[in-house]
Amino acid sequence: MSQYWSELTASLEPYVPGEQPKDRRYIKLNTNENPYPPSPKALEAIKEAAGADLRLYPDPTCDALRETIAARYGVTKEQVFVGNGSDEILGFAFPAFFAGKRPILFPDVTYSFYPVYARLYGVRYETVPTDVQFRIDPRSYAIPNGGVIVANPNAPTARYLMLNGIKEILDANREQVVVVDEAYIDFGGESAVSLLPDYPNLLVVQTLSKSRSLAGLRVGMALGHPDLIEGLNRIKNSFNSYTLDRLALAGALASLEDTAYFEETNRKVTETRERTTDALRELGFEVVDSLANFVFVTHPAKEARELFAALKSRGILVRYFNKPRIDNYLRITIGTDDEMEALLNALRDILP
Amino acid sequence: MSQYWSELTASLEPYVPGEQPKDRRYIKLNTNENPYPPSPKALEAIKEAAGADLRLYPDPTCDALRETIAARYGVTKEQVFVGNGSDEILGFAFPAFFAGKRPILFPDVTYSFYPVYARLYGVRYETVPTDVQFRIDPRSYAIPNGGVIVANPNAPTARYLMLNGIKEILDANREQVVVVDEAYIDFGGESAVSLLPDYPNLLVVQTLSKSRSLAGLRVGMALGHPDLIEGLNRIKNSFNSYTLDRLALAGALASLEDTAYFEETNRKVTETRERTTDALRELGFEVVDSLANFVFVTHPAKEARELFAALKSRGILVRYFNKPRIDNYLRITIGTDDEMEALLNALRDILP
Repeated sequence: MSQYWSELTASLEPYVPGEQPKDRRYIKLNTNENPYPPSPKALEAIKEAAGADLRLYPDPTCDALRETIAARYGVTKEQVFVGNGSDEILGFAFPAFFAGKRPILFPDVTYSFYPVYARLYGVRYETVPTDVQFRIDPRSYAIPNGGVIVANPNAPTARYLMLNGIKEILDANREQVVVVDEAYIDFGGESAVSLLPDYPNLLVVQTLSKSRSLAGLRVGMALGHPDLIEGLNRIKNSFNSYTLDRLALAGALASLEDTAYFEETNRKVTETRERTTDALRELGFEVVDSLANFVFVTHPAKEARELFAALKSRGILVRYFNKPRIDNYLRITIGTDDEMEALLNALRDILP
Repeated sequence: MSQYWSELTASLEPYVPGEQPKDRRYIKLNTNENPYPPSPKALEAIKEAAGADLRLYPDPTCDALRETIAARYGVTKEQVFVGNGSDEILGFAFPAFFAGKRPILFPDVTYSFYPVYARLYGVRYETVPTDVQFRIDPRSYAIPNGGVIVANPNAPTARYLMLNGIKEILDANREQVVVVDEAYIDFGGESAVSLLPDYPNLLVVQTLSKSRSLAGLRVGMALGHPDLIEGLNRIKNSFNSYTLDRLALAGALASLEDTAYFEETNRKVTETRERTTDALRELGFEVVDSLANFVFVTHPAKEARELFAALKSRGILVRYFNKPRIDNYLRITIGTDDEMEALLNALRDILP
């Protein structure tokens, strides 16, 4: 606390990201990074962009990247926004669409950054309970509100809501913006992008951090009606004209064009997820059905907190959230087959 | 205007950056980019970072870069904040220190992003007149206020305020934060960083975009008391955990270590500035004394708006601001000697 802070600053409870340990080399299954490297074409494009032109500002409207995204998803460039990670885009969406309105709605168990944005921008919110299996019930979003945000698949549960469920939420909220945060959609879910022609209130947010193996490059994207994209631009251009550097623009574009590599690595991750799910269930874990690149698990015979510590001492880092309803669960990122084998061996060793 | 926007979104008047033309190749003297390429060591470091580790998130606390900056400026790591360009840092400073306080003060002629931030965060402001030669009078900042922000050298005037003037502003405002925006300090001015031990209310903001030739990489930094840095971190961590990507971190660090290259290119820019200033004065221009990498000029015989158009049609892009007090001035970035020779030849051709 400092006399120089604003009241707002003093009131915040900032988000705490997963550990990025520097003390030793862990098998790192705690921040949902992709175990496979980025597309070689993306790395090549970055190296080519690392030249004299870095003295020049990047394109503030990111046209080339937005055109590539538009072509891939069958929309126009005016329906595409890009940002410095999908977190930044969410950080623009809250003031753009939710500030000064009725309380927004999001699930009680979800990405824990949502309430943090809400506090930063003075957005009121109410949480909507998921059921005992962490399922989102679309009908519970048909109440007065100032907007809705749902992650699909949800984090940290990995639970996927079928597209007709998303549609039901959109139908019940035609007067408000519904943000669908699809950070994990590429691992088996069906994107709500196909609903864009029918819903001017829909903003779909995605990231290159997970399925494109580019967490270190910080690129996210949003797709929606041009009016919503313009709303995001108004906030962005009141904050920072150039949010994506030249290297991120070049790498993201090349990554999006390399469909074959994208499909190959995603196939490997989802196959490993299915095998890991089976093996964990054999070890007595309850595993929430996952369409993400992580699994959310609990064990009847050993507390999650203890499992977390026991794994960490064996050099395996997973994510534990000390929060209501999920404090006996672990979120485990899907790594390579070798890494998951090491995880399973450690668990066999730890479990009674 | 859209029914889905918040009232805030509808009320904004976003910043408009200088043109980044794509239609033809201009001699580009409009956005204060450095004419020389970045340090070869920075480019090498970026290429090395463009590997498999891009699948992993960057260090959210940017420790290695902050340690390098701290060592260079003789402060501790806890006194250093880094961001996605100095614009992002200013975008954090407004809510961190100014929101909900009395009106803040800044000069009537200055970086036109300041009122944009103010509107985004609901910060009230009053502008303080500069004199006829665009000089800042420190005594005029000794009035009740909620904070102060001054660019030094100022933009777009290039006018430098001596360090004892900055000290006078700091002394008169011990209860509020004074942000000194030093985007152009490396071209001849003396940084207020030396005042940090005496002023816990001082935040110095710098960028690698100008003197480090890295506008395309998006890296800025702020130095101040650890309490102020923590205030910035509270906003940042309520917005985006990872604002600097791995490539920006690597390139910035290597650039900051390459002092010889930095000094060499800055010397060239300042020498060219002095020669250009003399030549422009010979052509009848009034040239504001500059300690930046640009000059601010007006000509008694030809309107600035006409000069802007005539130069553009000859393939030379400079900056014209259609704003009170400065609508008969041009801001001209210092390019290479060849580029400035082309500018001068064009002006000789245009002027009566």
